[in-house]
Amino acid sequence: MVLNIKMLFLLLLMIIFADQAQSQIPKRVREYGVRIGVLSTGKYNAITDVAGVTVGHTTLIKGDQVRTGVTAILPHTTNIFQQKVPAAVYVGNGFGKLAGTTQVQELGNLETPIVLTNTLNVATAMNAVVGYTLQQPGNEEVQSVNAVVGETNDGYLNDIRGRHVTETHVLQAIQEAKGGAVQEGNVGAGTGTVCFGFKGGIGTSSRVLPQNVGGYTVGVLVQTNFGGVLQVDGVPVGEELNQYYMNQRIKDSADGSCMIVVATDAPVDARNLERMAKRAMMGLAKTGGIASNGSGDYVIAFSSNPDLRIPYSTKDKTQAAPILRNDEMSPLFMAVIEATEEAIINSLFMAETMQGKENRTVEALPVNKVTKLLKKHHALKP
Amino acid sequence: MVLNIKMLFLLLLMIIFADQAQSQIPKRVREYGVRIGVLSTGKYNAITDVAGVTVGHTTLIKGDQVRTGVTAILPHTTNIFQQKVPAAVYVGNGFGKLAGTTQVQELGNLETPIVLTNTLNVATAMNAVVGYTLQQPGNEEVQSVNAVVGETNDGYLNDIRGRHVTETHVLQAIQEAKGGAVQEGNVGAGTGTVCFGFKGGIGTSSRVLPQNVGGYTVGVLVQTNFGGVLQVDGVPVGEELNQYYMNQRIKDSADGSCMIVVATDAPVDARNLERMAKRAMMGLAKTGGIASNGSGDYVIAFSSNPDLRIPYSTKDKTQAAPILRNDEMSPLFMAVIEATEEAIINSLFMAETMQGKENRTVEALPVNKVTKLLKKHHALKP
Amino acid sequence: MVLNIKMLFLLLLMIIFADQAQSQIPKRVREYGVRIGVLSTGKYNAITDVAGVTVGHTTLIKGDQVRTGVTAILPHTTNIFQQKVPAAVYVGNGFGKLAGTTQVQELGNLETPIVLTNTLNVATAMNAVVGYTLQQPGNEEVQSVNAVVGETNDGYLNDIRGRHVTETHVLQAIQEAKGGAVQEGNVGAGTGTVCFGFKGGIGTSSRVLPQNVGGYTVGVLVQTNFGGVLQVDGVPVGEELNQYYMNQRIKDSADGSCMIVVATDAPVDARNLERMAKRAMMGLAKTGGIASNGSGDYVIAFSSNPDLRIPYSTKDKTQAAPILRNDEMSPLFMAVIEATEEAIINSLFMAETMQGKENRTVEALPVNKVTKLLKKHHALKP
Amino acid sequence: MVLNIKMLFLLLLMIIFADQAQSQIPKRVREYGVRIGVLSTGKYNAITDVAGVTVGHTTLIKGDQVRTGVTAILPHTTNIFQQKVPAAVYVGNGFGKLAGTTQVQELGNLETPIVLTNTLNVATAMNAVVGYTLQQPGNEEVQSVNAVVGETNDGYLNDIRGRHVTETHVLQAIQEAKGGAVQEGNVGAGTGTVCFGFKGGIGTSSRVLPQNVGGYTVGVLVQTNFGGVLQVDGVPVGEELNQYYMNQRIKDSADGSCMIVVATDAPVDARNLERMAKRAMMGLAKTGGIASNGSGDYVIAFSSNPDLRIPYSTKDKTQAAPILRNDEMSPLFMAVIEATEEAIINSLFMAETMQGKENRTVEALPVNKVTKLLKKHHALKP
Repeated sequence: MVLNIKMLFLLLLMIIFADQAQSQIPKRVREYGVRIGVLSTGKYNAITDVAGVTVGHTTLIKGDQVRTGVTAILPHTTNIFQQKVPAAVYVGNGFGKLAGTTQVQELGNLETPIVLTNTLNVATAMNAVVGYTLQQPGNEEVQSVNAVVGETNDGYLNDIRGRHVTETHVLQAIQEAKGGAVQEGNVGAGTGTVCFGFKGGIGTSSRVLPQNVGGYTVGVLVQTNFGGVLQVDGVPVGEELNQYYMNQRIKDSADGSCMIVVATDAPVDARNLERMAKRAMMGLAKTGGIASNGSGDYVIAFSSNPDLRIPYSTKDKTQAAPILRNDEMSPLFMAVIEATEEAIINSLFMAETMQGKENRTVEALPVNKVTKLLKKHHALKP
Repeated sequence: MVLNIKMLFLLLLMIIFADQAQSQIPKRVREYGVRIGVLSTGKYNAITDVAGVTVGHTTLIKGDQVRTGVTAILPHTTNIFQQKVPAAVYVGNGFGKLAGTTQVQELGNLETPIVLTNTLNVATAMNAVVGYTLQQPGNEEVQSVNAVVGETNDGYLNDIRGRHVTETHVLQAIQEAKGGAVQEGNVGAGTGTVCFGFKGGIGTSSRVLPQNVGGYTVGVLVQTNFGGVLQVDGVPVGEELNQYYMNQRIKDSADGSCMIVVATDAPVDARNLERMAKRAMMGLAKTGGIASNGSGDYVIAFSSNPDLRIPYSTKDKTQAAPILRNDEMSPLFMAVIEATEEAIINSLFMAETMQGKENRTVEALPVNKVTKLLKKHHALKP
Repeated sequence: MVLNIKMLFLLLLMIIFADQAQSQIPKRVREYGVRIGVLSTGKYNAITDVAGVTVGHTTLIKGDQVRTGVTAILPHTTNIFQQKVPAAVYVGNGFGKLAGTTQVQELGNLETPIVLTNTLNVATAMNAVVGYTLQQPGNEEVQSVNAVVGETNDGYLNDIRGRHVTETHVLQAIQEAKGGAVQEGNVGAGTGTVCFGFKGGIGTSSRVLPQNVGGYTVGVLVQTNFGGVLQVDGVPVGEELNQYYMNQRIKDSADGSCMIVVATDAPVDARNLERMAKRAMMGLAKTGGIASNGSGDYVIAFSSNPDLRIPYSTKDKTQAAPILRNDEMSPLFMAVIEATEEAIINSLFMAETMQGKENRTVEALPVNKVTKLLKKHHALKP
Repeated sequence: MVLNIKMLFLLLLMIIFADQAQSQIPKRVREYGVRIGVLSTGKYNAITDVAGVTVGHTTLIKGDQVRTGVTAILPHTTNIFQQKVPAAVYVGNGFGKLAGTTQVQELGNLETPIVLTNTLNVATAMNAVVGYTLQQPGNEEVQSVNAVVGETNDGYLNDIRGRHVTETHVLQAIQEAKGGAVQEGNVGAGTGTVCFGFKGGIGTSSRVLPQNVGGYTVGVLVQTNFGGVLQVDGVPVGEELNQYYMNQRIKDSADGSCMIVVATDAPVDARNLERMAKRAMMGLAKTGGIASNGSGDYVIAFSSNPDLRIPYSTKDKTQAAPILRNDEMSPLFMAVIEATEEAIINSLFMAETMQGKENRTVEALPVNKVTKLLKKHHALKP
């Protein structure tokens, strides 16, 4: 066959577009055939697989400088202040500003949506959550609100000192929260984040336990902005790509942070939710994260189980609900680890190259190269 | 003797003025002859006795509804972000919103002024502290600020839902911070607080160790807004006045909170500052506080010792400074307990009757009656 | 009237016996008319007022050197390993060797008797508790036992390096545990302890809440071996007797320790038991304790409520029981504070002068002088 | 060349013996070409690469029933009580009996050798450590010893209820402690342990930082007795061998425990040692461990840096030493993660099939199969 100029040109176009197609429609890691862990996922492989949980994003991309946003996670869609949920916080590494920690730890409950944003807009987001709660019907007498607001620092791509997130942006994320598939990558609080030197963002995943151990669902959502030596399902991607912390060639601080939200429908009280939260850091470890000095790594875990709701106001002095025994916790621990690992990897696979502040560009994970590596290391399953 | 009308009128005036005098010029508990503890006080018997520490208040009293404010405590008067101080937080009871806790605990340092305000204005105060820090000369590249903002709930007297504290109010408190005598009672963040059913507020006290145990100074400042069974230097004032928690006559929840700031010039690292912070709750206990469920009782402790400043940026990988050994800590523990107890009592003695929201009035501690009780119980020393 | 020799002799005898009577039959502080706090006590004013709780002592006084012992507290009289109870530990100051802490904190339960002894015999007591548990009927398959053993250091009066407590002594204390009145003072683990420079020992007290807040009982047992500036119901006894920490005359280190066991029949889960445990240190503070550097101050709290027993082995994956809400905890917090304060004071009132190692003598609290001080300060109620 | 029968037979023998040789002389994972992480190891790739650290084992294999032992780790070879070292404990999952935790956490130091043994012999080991310390020259006046003794449960292979470890065994391990290469696998406290369903044991590894980040050494020693889904340098060995937790075929509880000892010569204080300890659990996570409910996962970290020794007795009230700043910690965190991961894998590679109690056998990791898997997954480096 004779290959003329025209054919060559078309072929080139096809290659270019194939590449663009790849970059235009990012896919989640599981779609490539990667199977992280041994448990099954829920329907959407998302935190929203946990009954009642909804997620909303406000993404702020303006001009050359603004690359930030807000992500809101709601444990249920009724008045959270009036119907608090059991909750716990675990501090993986406390170089961060998670608001609301001590009250969640003391009282074992969560009374607001969880909001994630950038480091310097935590206070604005808190003001929004407080205002949202004060104005909800039924909360007319409320005088104390424990806003739970987490953050990571998107200041490499975003004009973070400009503090561009407004209360309106936060309220919007809360109001638009919905179930079903969750947007990932460069959205909401993940718009401007960087992870393992690649573009990070929002990721999510879920696990469903076998019926013989309860059939419960665990969902995780992450905002990834940290470093280390990237592994994808055990494959040493960071090393193979020659991009990792302590690589002599590269001056990467590995700093940054990771916010992790863990939800479950299992009837777990605050004490065991804290134990679940602790395991999320083990999932982070499996991606190659090292919880560097400068990283604010926090886990917030809650149970959306309706039987465990804690009414703000009631005549009852006691509350009785079936609570999972310690002995039943191990499968949930494993589910947290797996879902956290996959949520982080999803955030990398779903994020796209982003240009931002001072003409800086952070490249997306080179998925083509990575899938080749995954194939070479036999990490792709048919 | 004949008592004519004129004389009667004069007598009446004398009684009125005597009473007013008492109410107009409140005195600190020590001025009545009470000696809490066995250690000596510093010059001002205030947190400002610790070298370098300054305090500023913004008091907001407007119309019938606004009774709130801001109090700022600065560990030193240069750039705190660039010259951080060793610090620790202890959570006595975590039903509160102290911002900045986890980073102080993780890194063992404080990088902003400490600001106290009301519960629903924590976020506004954080925004002010962040803005203040970003704008300080030398901080042009800073992208992360851990604002430490505490609160108690002044919603009984103050229209707290109106969130009347602005960033300007916060900046004003920081800018006007000064050494020397500290205003107490209904000022700053103590403007609208209630303590043991009486008007609470800001209080302060200090202790100086004997030279043979180092001669160090410990200063404490409190924002009092809690309940229990009041004791003044051991005298059962609450019981004698028939006003206390669990008194069948009275529906007092004992809730509310207490913010406690502990400063020292002793060269104490973060680990031992946490141990000092823990002892502040023992001082609170001695006033009859019970750390009720609804109380947000937090202690922030820092060392202003110049040798222990932690530079934000330095070429040195290590830092060497003389650090006090564990064995030397007990006198400092005792100083914290004594100064906290006296600071709380000072807040009660210095606060005055306040009328506020919905025509509610909170009476000042009836100092005349109390001093009689103190005399009866031999608590007044010549 | 003529006073003859015989009469004089009789008078002398009366005086001597009056004094001896005072020293021979120590009385609890409440018997002198002191009323610590505002809540009522249980029937025995002892930890055994909490239904099911039993206490046993083994007292070791041999020759000139051995002044030590064992105290055992059992949450119920059936197999504790098979029927664990909700429990928590709070570390007031961790210069001590309380065994079993981390498992109680992690799992929220207690599976053995609580045993108190001296510092260097903790291991022997653990071996005894392990052996006791392995041999209980029903525990034939048990391979893991979390022995909870606390201690204070009685080495001033006791030849502590001789480690005179044997496993038999420990088993004896467990086996002889009973309800009803509890021996106090120089018994069991309190045989050789020193408190505020006086002879310390075992003390106990209880509180019963009014029916409208649940009618629950809280009981406390302490092993007192610490220092500070003694206050008895607020009266500055240490200062008046010129014996206190930091008194220039006296070289008292204030060191030593306090073990505090808190029991309740209220249906409180591990999280809120930890909060109760925390309040015990506030009761200690009210006696003038300062939790000095060298003090091992630990609190173990458990609920003996039968509905909350945690079976070691069961087919049920969940457990449902009425659990007290956070909002109901404050009265229990106050009960813990009051009962701890009174238990400590009881330990001092009930302990008697003891001579021990190297001819050292530790004087009992001079109760005659103290009651005079209490009277002077109006702390005695009719 | 002619290949006759005899030669063939000899060849066959050689192959057989080669295989046996492989099983008789286990090799460490690195000897197969696996390179865990990106940092270099120390000379012995062992905790003893940290200057001054020594390790001793007592291995107890008697008859059919006894499969247990003792491992001792000494931070330095002089009197540890008199020259304490900065130390911290992190509780990964507290279903365990680590003695000494609270004092290490409170005072930030370690004053005895660290001893590991089986669950039911912790008390005996404590008694040995106490006796050892009391009898050391210079400790004649010592009356308080904080013995640090950890454990895992070897009751599957070992007659653990028989409590076969004696004080003599413990003293022997301490006395025979030495530097250089460390025995791994079925030795000391690892004699009877099980890990990921295979024979576990003792493992060790080390990392040396590049000079530009300090050149410090981090060493880790583990006693492995836990479960999950085994990964060797990211390769899913557990899944490939069809042996893992939650595998429907297998009833493995994943329970058990992991004791992790982290040593460094870096000048790190107790606060940052705790942060290092926390990272060890991230190394465990990378092997597939899940910190199951029944697992007692503890990390003890200490600095052997001579400048940081804490004298028991001194006239100095302060101590000054160059302490590593927070900013310098990240490389040490990564070193802990890598060394922990490799130490765990070494314990599996070095352990051999063991028969024990009730004729139970636990197979060694099938290294031949595993290396094939490692090769297939490109985890073997030339």
